[in-house]
Amino acid sequence: MTSTPLADLWPTLPGADARPEAAYRLLQAAVESFAERGFHATTTRDIATAAGMSPAALYIHYQSKAALLAEISRAGHAATLTLVRGAVAGGGGPAERMRELVEQFTAWHARARTVGRVVNYELHALPEDAYAVVAALRLDIEREVSALIEAGVAAGEFQVAEVRTAARAVTSLGIDVSRWYTDNSSEAPEELGRRYGELVLRMLGARV
Amino acid sequence: MTSTPLADLWPTLPGADARPEAAYRLLQAAVESFAERGFHATTTRDIATAAGMSPAALYIHYQSKAALLAEISRAGHAATLTLVRGAVAGGGGPAERMRELVEQFTAWHARARTVGRVVNYELHALPEDAYAVVAALRLDIEREVSALIEAGVAAGEFQVAEVRTAARAVTSLGIDVSRWYTDNSSEAPEELGRRYGELVLRMLGARV
Repeated sequence: MTSTPLADLWPTLPGADARPEAAYRLLQAAVESFAERGFHATTTRDIATAAGMSPAALYIHYQSKAALLAEISRAGHAATLTLVRGAVAGGGGPAERMRELVEQFTAWHARARTVGRVVNYELHALPEDAYAVVAALRLDIEREVSALIEAGVAAGEFQVAEVRTAARAVTSLGIDVSRWYTDNSSEAPEELGRRYGELVLRMLGARV
Repeated sequence: MTSTPLADLWPTLPGADARPEAAYRLLQAAVESFAERGFHATTTRDIATAAGMSPAALYIHYQSKAALLAEISRAGHAATLTLVRGAVAGGGGPAERMRELVEQFTAWHARARTVGRVVNYELHALPEDAYAVVAALRLDIEREVSALIEAGVAAGEFQVAEVRTAARAVTSLGIDVSRWYTDNSSEAPEELGRRYGELVLRMLGARV
């Protein structure tokens, strides 16, 4: 598996300050195990072994495999929310900012596809409190995208019949990249982002 | 779980002619178990129990849980390919047929979301020969969508820079509906299909 190291995706990892390297190794091992076998078929021993540690050493950092899943899901969603907010706060009009948002969001899901799969397909395995955190982050992402579409409509740059459905389509297109993108995909993540940026602007009725 | 019974999705089920009801019950139980726990964490005993049978009774119909996954994946892909071909062969110009295709494809993935999740997220768990069958069906779906886009470009109804990327976006939007659609979603499957039909036609540069 040739996924990007988590440290590149999440430059800071709250809660892992004490021994960041070991925590990263565990998160990386958990991501790959969950993506390969699914959460339920993965044991804490599998994760510890893949990280080159004993199960006891794992418990110094994380209480359970559910705590690892919760941290992966939280950090993955927080990273995409940060990226979305960065694009929304950027320069230019709504169409320009939407292009930036889709380019970044798409490229992230191509590069971080292994994390993306775990984050999006193992939601049902999250403990209730961790699910609530992730649901709040997802709602924030949807709201940012909806607000940008509304700004574009107000500015006369977009023509959209149902803002919520359009926002859903925009995020959905990006998220699903994690499912189908592989090392053999013909477009590099940035090129795919560029193409998807064009497609989304048209979908929103922008003149491109 | 309130998914549509498989019999509604797959009116005929080759290989299950001898005792269709028992086979359907097993497929239904397998779909729900795989969707809930993932393929690797599900045992043949889990599936047999959920179908109200003994493991021995399961083996009369299917050799293994992998054989059940293979049949679910094959049938799910075959059903969507049939639906895509029906739309492509329908009346009207390319834009009209694309609208029909997206409406049907989207509504299917909303209604059959539990099957959709299994079919799309457990691909890596398929035995090699079963994977080859499914890969061929997926390629056929992509080709049908690409050919319809090309026909639309040739007819002057679509304006598309990269046909393959656009075809990927069209199928990806529909497939991802299985991930996010729930009983609480505000649009009925047919209404979502209608809205996605509009969005896709715009994405392809059709004047709608």
